Amino acid sequence: LTLTRADCEALDRADPLRLFRDRFVLPPGTIYLDGNSLGAMPIAARTRVAEVMEQWGTDLISGWNVHSWIDLHERVGAKIGRLIGAGEGETIAGDSTSINLFKALAAALQLNPKRRVVLSERDNFPTDLYMAEGLIRHLGQGHELRLAAPDEMADAITDDVAVVMLTHVNYRTGRMYEMDAITATAHAKGALMLWDLAHSAGAVPVDLSRAGADFAIGCGYKFLNGGPGAPAFLYAARRHHAAMQPVLSGWFGHCAPFAFEPSYRPADGIAKMAVGTPPIISLTALEAGVDLMLEASIDDLRGKSLKQAEVFAALIAQEASSFGFHAASPGDPAQRGSQLCYEHENGWPIMRALIARKVIGDFRSPGILRFGFTPLYLGFTELWDAVAILRDIMTTRSWDKPEHHARARVT
Amino acid sequence: LTLTRADCEALDRADPLRLFRDRFVLPPGTIYLDGNSLGAMPIAARTRVAEVMEQWGTDLISGWNVHSWIDLHERVGAKIGRLIGAGEGETIAGDSTSINLFKALAAALQLNPKRRVVLSERDNFPTDLYMAEGLIRHLGQGHELRLAAPDEMADAITDDVAVVMLTHVNYRTGRMYEMDAITATAHAKGALMLWDLAHSAGAVPVDLSRAGADFAIGCGYKFLNGGPGAPAFLYAARRHHAAMQPVLSGWFGHCAPFAFEPSYRPADGIAKMAVGTPPIISLTALEAGVDLMLEASIDDLRGKSLKQAEVFAALIAQEASSFGFHAASPGDPAQRGSQLCYEHENGWPIMRALIARKVIGDFRSPGILRFGFTPLYLGFTELWDAVAILRDIMTTRSWDKPEHHARARVT
Repeated sequence: LTLTRADCEALDRADPLRLFRDRFVLPPGTIYLDGNSLGAMPIAARTRVAEVMEQWGTDLISGWNVHSWIDLHERVGAKIGRLIGAGEGETIAGDSTSINLFKALAAALQLNPKRRVVLSERDNFPTDLYMAEGLIRHLGQGHELRLAAPDEMADAITDDVAVVMLTHVNYRTGRMYEMDAITATAHAKGALMLWDLAHSAGAVPVDLSRAGADFAIGCGYKFLNGGPGAPAFLYAARRHHAAMQPVLSGWFGHCAPFAFEPSYRPADGIAKMAVGTPPIISLTALEAGVDLMLEASIDDLRGKSLKQAEVFAALIAQEASSFGFHAASPGDPAQRGSQLCYEHENGWPIMRALIARKVIGDFRSPGILRFGFTPLYLGFTELWDAVAILRDIMTTRSWDKPEHHARARVT
Repeated sequence: LTLTRADCEALDRADPLRLFRDRFVLPPGTIYLDGNSLGAMPIAARTRVAEVMEQWGTDLISGWNVHSWIDLHERVGAKIGRLIGAGEGETIAGDSTSINLFKALAAALQLNPKRRVVLSERDNFPTDLYMAEGLIRHLGQGHELRLAAPDEMADAITDDVAVVMLTHVNYRTGRMYEMDAITATAHAKGALMLWDLAHSAGAVPVDLSRAGADFAIGCGYKFLNGGPGAPAFLYAARRHHAAMQPVLSGWFGHCAPFAFEPSYRPADGIAKMAVGTPPIISLTALEAGVDLMLEASIDDLRGKSLKQAEVFAALIAQEASSFGFHAASPGDPAQRGSQLCYEHENGWPIMRALIARKVIGDFRSPGILRFGFTPLYLGFTELWDAVAILRDIMTTRSWDKPEHHARARVT
């Protein structure tokens, strides 16, 4: 059964999320399949950022109180919490994803002091592993970063593991862990569970409370559409709040920051995990992205994302099956986030050729073409057009030009 | 000899920096003496932030390359380096001041591994002490945070001190250390020297190279006019680059971040001290502030700042000597940053009354009224008007109203 462009147009007309697209700035003619790397700009982000600039210009220092900048990291955090099944007061925004990984892992290790193993995945997003390495080396207490393959993860959670640290949806393949099951296994073995939700928050349903997760962190600039380098977020389950001690113990996590006391006294609750003064302009852009995401139903989002993946895979099979693309994402939709990946020996020049034709996906070493589905602003007809362009590039071998082979630094 | 408003007008006319004021957005009628807490907004910041928003909207992920967001933290860092006497490739921007303090202190302690004492000042800005506390507790290696008074600092640098960690200009009193002398003493005793330049960068001449400082950090949102919560900066002397190991070892400090290697390999040089993805929108605003500061001569800035302090002190003596204000900043201008502080038993309500009359200084516990001088945009006539308003408030006792006594959270 052939999928036609008209079929895709019909899917767009029936899409319950179709009106969200008008809430974004999107360059005409571009088919954007990389919102899982940097989300598109909500129109409201432009407006709100312009507003916060005027606040700064007009109200100067008093903006901290008049415009509640002082609470912005808690306010945005609370909103993100609603997207990931956090309870009230369990999530804050601020700092980078890497820094939040460090904060959460340090807190988790300190809460499980008799054990020395951090278990993660070999193909985890590298900065998570790097941050764990740095923490472990610095602690100098003989901790070990142990890496396992996804299929062996449950078995690898042995009773010497202090913290299981996993990215829920793999950045490269889109493979998604069963959060509830892995968390339960970790707890059964006496380990704490730290989830990285970089490719989950705003992309797939997440319920940290139901899963019983201990800590989670995630990224603001992917599916949350918070802007380049947007602040990240951190979740800690309420049951750990009293005992957890921030290693990055800054004045924004102090119980009375403006008393200027010489000694650190942590704030109650999640507030203690804040560190320094948050970047208010970037945080304001993030709030606009999160607000927009909160307007959509996560079930609608997931439904559309799964349908988009189904359509895209069908189109690749239909239009490009003879060109050597190998599916690199799990076949079972329940085990996938909101992306599809294909391996190809000429992955790099093919992706460069696609980008030159304004089909924006991305490439991940060694040979992965990655296509992300962002249901808030991506249409089905765009998928049809993207695959038609891919087919053309492959048929004409137009990917095989020197400029497409050149290796530039990419993100 | 009485200072008149006409005298102040004459000083403004003769001010070589007077044209810089037009480069800022400043609310009419407000006399802003708190640019040492949050600098005013350069007009260029508004423009540049609007531009970076358009870049995001239009170029999406390719903005990282097309607009060199990927290097922005290094580029802004290099520019800040020129303001503080850093050599090429010794400074990066990013993260908060608190996080940078942690990074620098951790690196310094690791470079001086046989010693266990961090020496600082009791009245240091608290977050520096808090971050040191957290680091020390976390290391669990018996380090000690030892605090001394400024007058005793040189003597307190004993041969068990690993790192001397001082804020160059005290946030409360404006007292400034002799950077060269203290650094030399630290080195003579085998300690490393870490300077916090939060109230120095863009405010007073700083020459880290001449002083031979080992590490320095500082704040982007004070005299650098980078916007609320602007990213901070970190300096490390080149001689430490090869040996220093970042504890916060994130992918932006990796030598090949987009190779997605599973193990951390630090970048060469200062680049290894970057951690996660920097907040590009906030960093763009900071760049505008730094660019503007680079247009001014630091000698002109210091000259005007000293003159403004002289005029302000003279006006307080002339107009308000009978009201119980006690100078809380050093009398010797060479020992002061770009602010003057007064102690008053009713400091809080007096400052609230000043702010209600649009004279914006700030209050620091227990009883300090703080007035900052930002020569790029502050005029002498404003100083005259500010003190006239203070005199009026004191003469009429209009500070003694319930609304001025109320304690709000302030920054």
